[in-house]
Amino acid sequence: MEKITVKAFSTSANLGPGFDILALAHNAFCDELTMEKNPDSPYGSIRIIANGVPTEVEKNSAGLSLLKLFHEYGIRESVTIRIKKNVPVGAGLGGSGCSSASSVAAVNELFDLGISRDEQIRFAMEGEAASSGSAHPDNVAASIYGNLVSVNSLNPPRARNINIGLELKLLSIIPETHINGKTGMARSMIPHQITLESHVQNSRSLSSLIAGFMSGKRDLIQEGMNDYVVETSRISMFPFYWEIKENALRNNAVGACVSGAGPTILILYDGETNIKAIEERSRYIMNASGLNYRMVHSVPSEGIIIERSE
Amino acid sequence: MEKITVKAFSTSANLGPGFDILALAHNAFCDELTMEKNPDSPYGSIRIIANGVPTEVEKNSAGLSLLKLFHEYGIRESVTIRIKKNVPVGAGLGGSGCSSASSVAAVNELFDLGISRDEQIRFAMEGEAASSGSAHPDNVAASIYGNLVSVNSLNPPRARNINIGLELKLLSIIPETHINGKTGMARSMIPHQITLESHVQNSRSLSSLIAGFMSGKRDLIQEGMNDYVVETSRISMFPFYWEIKENALRNNAVGACVSGAGPTILILYDGETNIKAIEERSRYIMNASGLNYRMVHSVPSEGIIIERSE
Repeated sequence: MEKITVKAFSTSANLGPGFDILALAHNAFCDELTMEKNPDSPYGSIRIIANGVPTEVEKNSAGLSLLKLFHEYGIRESVTIRIKKNVPVGAGLGGSGCSSASSVAAVNELFDLGISRDEQIRFAMEGEAASSGSAHPDNVAASIYGNLVSVNSLNPPRARNINIGLELKLLSIIPETHINGKTGMARSMIPHQITLESHVQNSRSLSSLIAGFMSGKRDLIQEGMNDYVVETSRISMFPFYWEIKENALRNNAVGACVSGAGPTILILYDGETNIKAIEERSRYIMNASGLNYRMVHSVPSEGIIIERSE
Repeated sequence: MEKITVKAFSTSANLGPGFDILALAHNAFCDELTMEKNPDSPYGSIRIIANGVPTEVEKNSAGLSLLKLFHEYGIRESVTIRIKKNVPVGAGLGGSGCSSASSVAAVNELFDLGISRDEQIRFAMEGEAASSGSAHPDNVAASIYGNLVSVNSLNPPRARNINIGLELKLLSIIPETHINGKTGMARSMIPHQITLESHVQNSRSLSSLIAGFMSGKRDLIQEGMNDYVVETSRISMFPFYWEIKENALRNNAVGACVSGAGPTILILYDGETNIKAIEERSRYIMNASGLNYRMVHSVPSEGIIIERSE
C-alpha cells in the first residue's frame, strides 16, 4: 500500500510587529505524519491515530483541513493518518498549524491534486480554527514554505518567502503551562480598535524589521522587533517576557519576541550575541517565575518534506 | 564672501501604506538655495529672499527650521538665504520639506556644525510644521538621504535607505489646484482610531511593498502599494485618483499612489509598462475633471547636493 510521509517543522508567528503576517519555520521540533488510503473504510472517511492531540476529525486541526479539502475536491476514498506529534501544542510554536499543513500536503501528494502552496494555506487555515477558533494564515504559511514568510494577502491567501541575510540562530524558552483555549484567549485580548499613532509606530517597526532581515543588518532587526499593539495587550499572560527580552538585548541578541500567541519566548541570535549569558539569566528569571520550562536551540528550517513509499 | 549652494529634489511620501514612514526623492523638480553670512545684519538674524513662498521667517519652512537650529547651536551670526523655488508647493511633492531640508544642510555646511543626517531630519521637521501644522519626517528624510527611505524611529528621528532592486521610473500627474492649508486638512481627514483589521491589512501591504522594492519583484510592489487607512480617508479630495490608478495597473504599471497629501498622483513604471497608454488615458481623465494639470516624468534621485564657493 502506497504511503506518504510528511515532516513539518515548528513555526514562530508574528516576530513582533508582524501579527497575522510574518512567521518563521525553525527546527526546534518536527512533526511526522503518515497517510495511507484505507480501502476497507466506508466512503470518504478520515481516521486519525495520534499521540497527545484529539483524534476526533472535527476537533483535530489535520482532520478539519481534510474535511474541507475532501469536500471541495470531491474525494470519495478513505484515508488513515498517523501523527507523531513532537511540536508542543499550546506553546506558540505552531503545533496545530504543523498538523493541518502536513495533512494537506499529504493528501495533495497521495491523490496527485497539484494544489498550489498558497491554496494549501487556505485549507490548512481551516484546521487552525479547530485549535484557536480563528483561521489565521501565518503559522501554516511558514510550515508550508519554510524559513521566513510574509503573508501578503488573506483572501485568497498569498505568501512569499523573505530572504534572511544573516546567519540566524534561535533560542526558544518554552514555559510548560497549559491554558485551555490559549490562542483564542490571546487573540481576544487584542483591542479591536487601535490609535493611528500605534498603527504608524508598528508600521515603522515592520518596515525596519523586513529591511533588516533582507539586508542582514542586525541593528534594523533590533529596532524593528518591537510591537505596540499585540504583545502589549497580552503582556499579563507572560510576566517574565520583558525581563528576558531586556536581558537578551543587553547581551546583543538580534531580537526577542513572543512566539505566536505565546507563552514561548523566541530569542534571535548570531555569532555576535553572548548567548551563554542570555541562557544563564533566562534560567534565573524562569526559575523565579515558578514555572517549569525547556530551552531549545534551533535554526531556520525548510518547509514541508514529503516522502512516498510502498 | 563664502557662499553655500544647496540643491534638493522633490519627494513623494507614503507610497500607499507607508504613511509618515516611506518617501522617495525623484528629480521631477529641484530647488536651489544659497546661503551667505551677512555681517551687516543685527545679531543672529535670518533674511529670506524667495519666489512664490512666504519670506517671513516664522511662516517659511526654511526659516522655522533655522530658528530652532540657531537657538540650539547658539549661532550668533546672521545669514541671507536665497531660495529658487522650483518644487511646486501644495502639490504633495515635498515642496516645503525641500526648503527646510536644504536650509538645514546649508547652515550645517556654512558653520561646519557636523550635524548627522538624522539630526538634520529633526530640525527640518520643524519647518514642515510651518506649512502643514504638523512636524512629519518622511519628506525631509527623503530630501536629505535621497532615493527611497524608511523612517524607522521618530523620537529621535532615524531613517535608512531602502534599496530599489529594479529600474524604476515615475510619472507625476500634478493637478493645479490650490487648497489653503491642504496638508493640514488632508491630515485631519485621517481617522484617529482604526480597526485592527485595517491595521493588519495595511501592514500586509507594507510588508509586501518593502520586500518588493528590495528584491525588485514588481508583482510584490503592485500588491503592496495599496492603502486602507490614509488614502481611503482622503479620497473625496482626489476624485480622479481611482480611475487613473486602475488604468495604470491595467497597463502594467509597477504601482500607483497619491503622492504625500496629494493632489499629485504618482505612477511607478518600468520597461514592461505601457506608459504611453497610461499617459493618454490619464490626460483624458484629467481633462474630464476640468482641472489644469501637468505631467512630469522622473527617476529616483540622490539626496541633497552641496557646493561651496567664494
